[in-house]
Amino acid sequence: MYGHQSTGLLPDDYPQFFSRGQGARLWDVDGNELLDFMCAYGPNLFGYGDAQIDRAYIDQLAIGDTLTGPTGLIVELAEQFTAMVRHADWAIFCKNGTDATSMALVTARAHTKKKTVILAKGAYHGAAPWCTPRPTGTTAEDKAHQVFCAYNDIASLDAAAAAAGDDLAAIFAAPMKHDAFVDQALPDPAYARRAREICDRTGALLVVDDVRGGLRLARDCSWSLVGVEPDLSTWGKCIANGHPLSALLGSDKARAAAASIYVTGSYWFQAAPMAAALVTLKRVRETDYLERIQGVGQRLRDGLAERATAAGFGLRQTGPVTMPLFLFDEDPDLRKGFFWSSEMLKRRVYVHPWHNMFMCAAMTLADIDQALEAAEASFAALKTQAGSLGPVDKLAFLAA
Amino acid sequence: MYGHQSTGLLPDDYPQFFSRGQGARLWDVDGNELLDFMCAYGPNLFGYGDAQIDRAYIDQLAIGDTLTGPTGLIVELAEQFTAMVRHADWAIFCKNGTDATSMALVTARAHTKKKTVILAKGAYHGAAPWCTPRPTGTTAEDKAHQVFCAYNDIASLDAAAAAAGDDLAAIFAAPMKHDAFVDQALPDPAYARRAREICDRTGALLVVDDVRGGLRLARDCSWSLVGVEPDLSTWGKCIANGHPLSALLGSDKARAAAASIYVTGSYWFQAAPMAAALVTLKRVRETDYLERIQGVGQRLRDGLAERATAAGFGLRQTGPVTMPLFLFDEDPDLRKGFFWSSEMLKRRVYVHPWHNMFMCAAMTLADIDQALEAAEASFAALKTQAGSLGPVDKLAFLAA
Repeated sequence: MYGHQSTGLLPDDYPQFFSRGQGARLWDVDGNELLDFMCAYGPNLFGYGDAQIDRAYIDQLAIGDTLTGPTGLIVELAEQFTAMVRHADWAIFCKNGTDATSMALVTARAHTKKKTVILAKGAYHGAAPWCTPRPTGTTAEDKAHQVFCAYNDIASLDAAAAAAGDDLAAIFAAPMKHDAFVDQALPDPAYARRAREICDRTGALLVVDDVRGGLRLARDCSWSLVGVEPDLSTWGKCIANGHPLSALLGSDKARAAAASIYVTGSYWFQAAPMAAALVTLKRVRETDYLERIQGVGQRLRDGLAERATAAGFGLRQTGPVTMPLFLFDEDPDLRKGFFWSSEMLKRRVYVHPWHNMFMCAAMTLADIDQALEAAEASFAALKTQAGSLGPVDKLAFLAA
Repeated sequence: MYGHQSTGLLPDDYPQFFSRGQGARLWDVDGNELLDFMCAYGPNLFGYGDAQIDRAYIDQLAIGDTLTGPTGLIVELAEQFTAMVRHADWAIFCKNGTDATSMALVTARAHTKKKTVILAKGAYHGAAPWCTPRPTGTTAEDKAHQVFCAYNDIASLDAAAAAAGDDLAAIFAAPMKHDAFVDQALPDPAYARRAREICDRTGALLVVDDVRGGLRLARDCSWSLVGVEPDLSTWGKCIANGHPLSALLGSDKARAAAASIYVTGSYWFQAAPMAAALVTLKRVRETDYLERIQGVGQRLRDGLAERATAAGFGLRQTGPVTMPLFLFDEDPDLRKGFFWSSEMLKRRVYVHPWHNMFMCAAMTLADIDQALEAAEASFAALKTQAGSLGPVDKLAFLAA
């Protein structure tokens, strides 16, 4: 197995293969029913196998899906999506999140006729050669014209802009710091405003990469929460509740540049995922799903904090409650996190020891109580073992 | 509209949006029923809305699709696919054809620890910055370490290999010359063998990009027809009959390198397209679909040749009969081709004036007869107008 769903860097008892998903639950191939806090690494926003969304997909499939051209749904979806995302005046639909971030890069370079892009060190923007976190098989040229800053560090952003000189094409920003292996951080509004100011001053485009965070922070671009509008935003994962669709949205300023580039894919104009996205976005607009996932997320955070403290552990729960990450204090090589996560899995709760998790609208308060009960027992098990845990071989690179 | 399905470079009367597809037919948004020789630019191999293939998709969707990990179907599909493609010992599944070709590039560089890749000038291998046919918004570095040859020209291939020196990572080859705007050409076996020899001599990997041609030339990698086995082959479009799936297949030689790179996507492990692919590949193995599409393709070619000649036109029909391209003699700016294609469209037959077309197994001999009847009338209409046709404004770039 390859990619983000490989269990290569998870505890040995984590299942690599699953047989079924329904609502907030997964079944592994051995038939174990798991309460799933990964939500397919984001796509599951309204529950696996949501009847209404999947019905829209199936109904459209019977009419037409991958054809010799798009259906009218592409227009309808672009209209609905741009009406919802304040900065956006147009949309390009694609398949991978990486398609959207790569198009944002190319669009910014076409718009500015400049090359340099500022990225936050450690931020994930996809797995193409220009952005993949593991450079094996890529070349130095694949990552040419990139300057790095530290997320939320205004001085480092200014320094990066200075380094870019008069060649700045774009500033990329995750909606929050959601890097793997380290604490998450919400965006500092002053940092977001400075990114906007630098772009306004230089003519560069501001890109918010909402592929992972989109629709779990806001019903608009996630940086709407800090009052900053980008020129481009990238979307994916949950916009069709797991059906394959991603998107680049942009403001009028960038329209001509976006229209000038050549990007495409054999399935980009599939109608069925667009039908599913229309239902998904309607539910985003018209229901309290966001407040509900915030509610279950808060209950989980509060309950875990209480139980960790009671057991004598420092547990850092970072990021928004809808996308939590758990790291233990005094656990630089994650041996405690690995042990505790395995204990949770034994109790049929699937948590991730070093990647942010995702809440979904199919989770109930009873689900959270189940998770908290498992957590209490897992903290107790950790307490008996914490002093004797050895390092985790597969995480030896963390110490290096 | 953007990408390969934009009608920007098609006759003005070509519809941009469709409402429905069934079998070999499409309906545009105005309700016109069209016999479709584009087959979604390839994905439609067994007919739009194939009941059995779509049923497999829908049934799997009800069980689980985009989950926190793959299902066992990824293993089953890898086994079935590699059993069918002789050179292949492993498979990575992805979404876009471009995902597969980009992974092939990165895998070859990881395997050889070299950088230079030989490509045929004018060949299409996707729309990422390293390969997009329109460089707007890309940088010189995106296309670094590329050397070009002419397809089927052994001397130019030797020269490209000499230019690569001791840095050759890969030779990319389309299964045939299927560039836009020019005559197609089947592979010269001696050219294919020379590519293999150069790779064997230098340690570079030979990549056959079967995204477009796969399963319409052979039930194996397309270069099996000329007796040459690549190290890597890329697949997409029709392998799940229009459901979103592509693949990189490779030989054991390249396994360690493929396992060492980091590539992934949010929907790459979707189970439903894999279920559809299993049915598609089974039908490929067990039915005479290939002989049938060759049969309808040959009937179309013979009938068109006869009618073109009778009307006094030289019509070059190139490439395999399953993927034909039509270009008129003495028509450098395609004004005849545009006029004739529009006449075909008026008669409800959708042909493309400068891109190869695709036959599908849902086409019947009666469909071909309908197309030939339309063609005869379209040749007659062209005959009355050929002398007075003006240049096509949107194709002015061809003259340049």
